[in-house]
Formats: sequence, C-alpha cells, structure tokens
Amino acid sequence: MTHADTHVKGFSFSVATAGIKQSEHPDCGLIYSDVPATCAGVFTRNKVVAAPLQITRPRIQAGKCQAVLVNSGNANACTGNQGLQTAQHNGRTLATELGIAEDLVAVASTGVIGVQLPGERLDAVVPQLVRERSPDGAEAVAKAIMTTDLFIKVSSAQLQAPGQSGTILGIAKGAGMIHPNMATMLGFVVTDANIGTELLRQSLSIAVEQSFNSITVDGDTSTNDMVLILANGQADDEKIVCGSAAAEDFQLQLNRVLLDLAKMIVRDGEGATKVVQIHVQGARNPAEAREAARSVATSNLVKTAFFGEDANWGRIIAALGYSDAEMDADQVDIWFDQVQVVSKGLSTGPEQEELATEVLRQKEFCVTLDLHLGSGESDYYTSDLTYEYVKINADYRT
Amino acid sequence: MTHADTHVKGFSFSVATAGIKQSEHPDCGLIYSDVPATCAGVFTRNKVVAAPLQITRPRIQAGKCQAVLVNSGNANACTGNQGLQTAQHNGRTLATELGIAEDLVAVASTGVIGVQLPGERLDAVVPQLVRERSPDGAEAVAKAIMTTDLFIKVSSAQLQAPGQSGTILGIAKGAGMIHPNMATMLGFVVTDANIGTELLRQSLSIAVEQSFNSITVDGDTSTNDMVLILANGQADDEKIVCGSAAAEDFQLQLNRVLLDLAKMIVRDGEGATKVVQIHVQGARNPAEAREAARSVATSNLVKTAFFGEDANWGRIIAALGYSDAEMDADQVDIWFDQVQVVSKGLSTGPEQEELATEVLRQKEFCVTLDLHLGSGESDYYTSDLTYEYVKINADYRT
Repeated sequence: MTHADTHVKGFSFSVATAGIKQSEHPDCGLIYSDVPATCAGVFTRNKVVAAPLQITRPRIQAGKCQAVLVNSGNANACTGNQGLQTAQHNGRTLATELGIAEDLVAVASTGVIGVQLPGERLDAVVPQLVRERSPDGAEAVAKAIMTTDLFIKVSSAQLQAPGQSGTILGIAKGAGMIHPNMATMLGFVVTDANIGTELLRQSLSIAVEQSFNSITVDGDTSTNDMVLILANGQADDEKIVCGSAAAEDFQLQLNRVLLDLAKMIVRDGEGATKVVQIHVQGARNPAEAREAARSVATSNLVKTAFFGEDANWGRIIAALGYSDAEMDADQVDIWFDQVQVVSKGLSTGPEQEELATEVLRQKEFCVTLDLHLGSGESDYYTSDLTYEYVKINADYRT
Repeated sequence: MTHADTHVKGFSFSVATAGIKQSEHPDCGLIYSDVPATCAGVFTRNKVVAAPLQITRPRIQAGKCQAVLVNSGNANACTGNQGLQTAQHNGRTLATELGIAEDLVAVASTGVIGVQLPGERLDAVVPQLVRERSPDGAEAVAKAIMTTDLFIKVSSAQLQAPGQSGTILGIAKGAGMIHPNMATMLGFVVTDANIGTELLRQSLSIAVEQSFNSITVDGDTSTNDMVLILANGQADDEKIVCGSAAAEDFQLQLNRVLLDLAKMIVRDGEGATKVVQIHVQGARNPAEAREAARSVATSNLVKTAFFGEDANWGRIIAALGYSDAEMDADQVDIWFDQVQVVSKGLSTGPEQEELATEVLRQKEFCVTLDLHLGSGESDYYTSDLTYEYVKINADYRT
C-alpha cells in the first residue's frame, strides 16, 4: 500500500458497528462533504441491480452528492420492494440527521445477496456516524467495507498542474475473481479539486476503464459494483476545464489512484503471490487488443503457469487463439519482460525459456504479446492462481 | 463408469510405450478398422490448430478413415512446419505398416504445447502397434491417452431399433476446466453400424453439442480438441437412413454414449465431488437458454457454493444477470431438484433453503432456472470447485 495522504479539504469520514456483520467490527461508514459536491459514478452492468444502486444511480446522474452511506455484510440485492424501501429509508435517515436534501445522499452495500438488509440497525447508528465524523477517518471506512479483503485499500495523489493544490483520495474494497465468495467491487474517490460534472464523468469513465475494468473478468460483474467520485472544490483552486493542462494532469492522477487501488485488488487474493501485466500490441484495433489481453489474463491455465513459474507460452498462445481477436499464430511474438520466448509463433529455444523462468520468479512482471496485425494496444492486470490443487498440477511440464 | 461392452465388430486396438511421456507407461495407441470406415469429426474452434488436426481434418472431411494413431505427452502444437511433417510422417509410417492408403489414417495428440514431438519414437513402435492389435484393447487405448485424468473413460450402447444389432463404443480423455494443466479433450467413437457419411456427420454434431460442448467453458478450447467417429458397417445390419426409426435410435444411443463420457470428464476433477446439471427453461429462445446455462455452470462463485453445500441462489441469479441472455430478475424461479428456493426473484424463505441444502448434499443434483420469458430450454453439466482455498471461503455465509 502506498502511504496515502488521507486528508482532503472539506471531507470527513466515520464508521460504526451496526451489527449487520456477525463480527463486532465496524460494518458501515459515512463519507461526507461540507458542501454539495460535483459527482460521477460507474455502476454494474449486471442485469440484476441491487437496491442501493437503484436508489443511488439517478441521484449521481443528477450531478450532486454530499454524503455516502455504505455498509458491508449484506448486499441488499434480490430483496424486491422491501429492499428498495430499506435503502431509501436509510438514506432519508442520514439526510435528516445531516440536515441535507435526501437526494444528496448515496447509499452502497456489499455482502450476502437475497437476504433483507436489517435497515433499522443501520438507522440506529446514523447519529453516531454523523457525530463522529473526522477528516482522519478514510482508512477506517476502507476497513469497515471489507468483506473477504485481507488488507485495506487506500491511495491518493496530489494534483501537479500550475495553480492546482488539490488531492485525489480513493478507497476501495474487493478481491476480484480470486476470492470466490464476494466479488463486489466498491470504490469511493474524493477530491477537493474544482471540476465540472461533464469533465468529471469523462475522467472517471476513462480511469475506470484502465483500472477496475482491466482487472476483472468481463461480464463477471456483481449486482453491487459501484465507483463514485465526489469533487467539492474546497481546495479553492482554479476550475479545471476540458482540454487544459490541469485537466490532463487530473486524468493522469486519477488514473494513477484507481490503477493503484485496482492492483491492490489483484494482489489481495488468497495466496496470490504475483501481479502480472498482460500487454498486447499489434492487434488490428484497440478493442481486439483488449479482448486478447482479457482472454490471456483470465485464463486459469495461464494463471496456473504463472504460479508454477513456468514460461508456458503454449497456454498463452492457446488463450489468444480462443479470444475473439483476429490473430495469426505464425505472426505472434511473446516476451516475458525483456526476454523473447516466441518469435513468429515458434519457440526461441530452451535458453530463452530459462531466462524467462527467472522473470517469472519476480513478484511483478509484464507479458508482452505482439500480434503484428495493426497498432491496437491494451493492458490487463492479473494474478497467479495459487490454490493447493494447483501446487499439485503446476509441476506437470517439469 | 458403466460396464461397457468394448467389442465392436471389425475394430481392433493396441497400445505401446514410445517414451514420449517420461513415465514408463503406454503413451500411444492405435484404433483400426478391418475395412475403410465412414467417418465424421468435430475439431477445435481455437484459431491455433495443432499439426495433427491440420493433417486429420481434411482426411476426415473426405469421408473415409481406417486407422487412428494417437499419442499423449506431446500435443505437437505451435511446432510449425517441422511439427506438420512429423505428424504426416507418423501417419505415413502407420499406413505403410498396415498396407493402406495414407489418407485413411487419422493422427491425434495431447500433451505439452510448443515442443517438437519426437516422431521417430512414435515411428519406432508402429510395428508393435500393428502386430499387437486386439478386439479387447479399447480400455488400454483409453488409458494410454490420459494426461491428468484420474480414471479411464469408456462407454458403450447397443442399437435398439428393429433390424439393428450394432454397438457404439466411445473412449475419451479430458478433465475439463477442473484440471488446469491440460484441457485438451479427445474422443474416439467406433461403431459397426451401417450408416452414410452425411447422417453420421449430422448425428455426431448433435451429440457433441449436447455432451462435450455442454460441459466446457465456451471458447476455452485447446489447440488439440478432436472427436472422431468411425462406422464400418461390419454388424451387417440394414443401412440406417435419415428420418428412419433406426436413425432416431442411433442418435439417441450416440447422445447417451457421449453424454456418459462428458459426465465422466466433469467428475474427473482434482477433488470434484459433485456433478450438477444446470437446466434453464423459459428463456426467449434455445440460444439464450444455452448462454444462461453456460454462465451459471461456469461461474466460480456458483461452483464454490455447490462445494460448500450452500443453497446460495444469489450467486446463481448474479451469474444469470451477467450472461447475454435476456432476463428479468423479478420473473425468475429457481429450484434445487424439486425444492423451489426462488419465486419471482425473491427467496421462498429459510425453510425451503434448509430443504435445498439437503439436495446439495447429494453427489448429483439438478438446478432448474425458469426465466418465464419464452420456451427456450438448455442443459449444462458442471462440477463443484473444491480447492483448498475454497474450503476456507465456503463458510462465508454461515
């Protein structure tokens, strides 16, 4: 984890133990801005959409948000009308306690699906959440929203453009496809930068595509996935406008924070030992590059080989072959970091494979695939598969 | 395994130890018909196609085959021109030894990708393979082609229509997505029925779709997947013609044999303890039913819950939600065998879930999903995920 500066002007945070989780640990949190913030959100593409998302999505789309109420232990998904009413009621309770408009409150949940959320328990701790807000509380919120996560996920960056003094702070929960119990990904980003809704939306969309959407299996979205960003302008900087150097820097820093969080999610697998970048170049177009990278990054066969530290490029080329991207096996080059193991679809020999094995011993490395068909490029981030049974099977080639 | 009748008139089988695998066990086999047989094949859809398939596919498409030479330990994939020449040479050696035309020989391989097949070792045992053929040898071939398989896969059926006395015998290797080391699926079916090429092709295509193509992850095809059927007419029965009762029965028995083999592949996972049928009905059309069933059957989240014997229908409905099939969460019904756990998208209560947990304790059960949108139906077969790490996580809900 990076040593994040977790203070952002005008934002405060708090947690409480509502008793939704069976543990005695905090299971809900509040993120609050002193003033209504410009906001944007990215929501699950699953056709089954949890109640809190149904409430929150239109509010975020309206462009203003001042408070986020989030709980773990129960997803409030597949809970019908009752679930919707619970989510709405919790939001209303918080709005009343804060003395703000109800539609300035976002709600988010993660946990078990199909069980009614005990909303009254959440209501009961709302006064405590409001009372105990502190500028220091971001890490506590990151901890309260963990489900199967092994560590908290916080990252931040300072804006660098002239005239900009703001901070971007992000927290997240999720353990990707590695933990099969709870795949929901939540991300909350706050900044004191001064930025309009349109640019904020566009920036978030780009940053999510290159981070959270480059680590998970396409389509394997949970009912509750949500990433929100709130920008409250309290740094008192110049407004960041589209096309400016400040906008470019904002995008860069936002990408950095979200990619940092996304990599933490990759790293947070039960026993995952490696974070591997899959870089595809030379695809016919960026969409096919992305599809090729996704196919390799999500192949259990490839991920097992990473764990076995086996430069098994045959599995990589097979995963390329069943992706929807156009490819010609006789054109493909493959590198592990700087070591080329495949040239025009054929092995470069055992010496190169030996060198590649050294690369695979590292905790982080990059696999580059050049399809030699065009200029499409894309990156995906994945981990190794380290299940016990893989230990048994990873020796197959040796 | 069923007690298969492994004799089929006019077919003989043999195995040998060529030393392609490092073990001292047989690693290659021969399937031989006394006369050229009518044949059909289904081949991988992967864009990377192993050398033996490049040789065999056009020969099978020509409609006649008399001998199949198969090896394990090396896939002869991503081996370029040299690999092609090796496969061709091995086939020629066998044809010469048998005194038959070269294009009546099919070759098949499974094992490591990207390493040249030591073809001279295979050539060296060809005389032994030809010499030691026996009508009893089918199980030995099934054993010789195993890679990570834990048990041999053989199944057979007798034709039942009036005037038909033939047998269908199938052998297969593969351990699906469960064993991540070697996902190649090979299937060889022989029958002494009298059937033409066109009808044989059509029957194989239907049977493969309902069996082998209903157990593996769509698209996650290996470079070497191949299913062949040889029909030599040596039962001296009436010819089976399209549209007849005999054709219908042939389809039925072929489906039965291939589904039996496919279920063995599902069962043959490291530690897999359950075979689960996912039955989708009420989809808008059969294609969407298939896509919905596939999405549920291949979800790691769902498979983990099966292992945990947790009637966690939330994961099932989430997997439905991210499939490409149209669905309305408020319409969905879900059953575990006869126990309904979801009605119109909502839980039927804890008592039903208790009963469903009993169903999940069985080694085989069926999950039925009714989307209530049309009359599309489809089935997929899957196993539970039993990795050690899952043991840790399967208790999450309880």
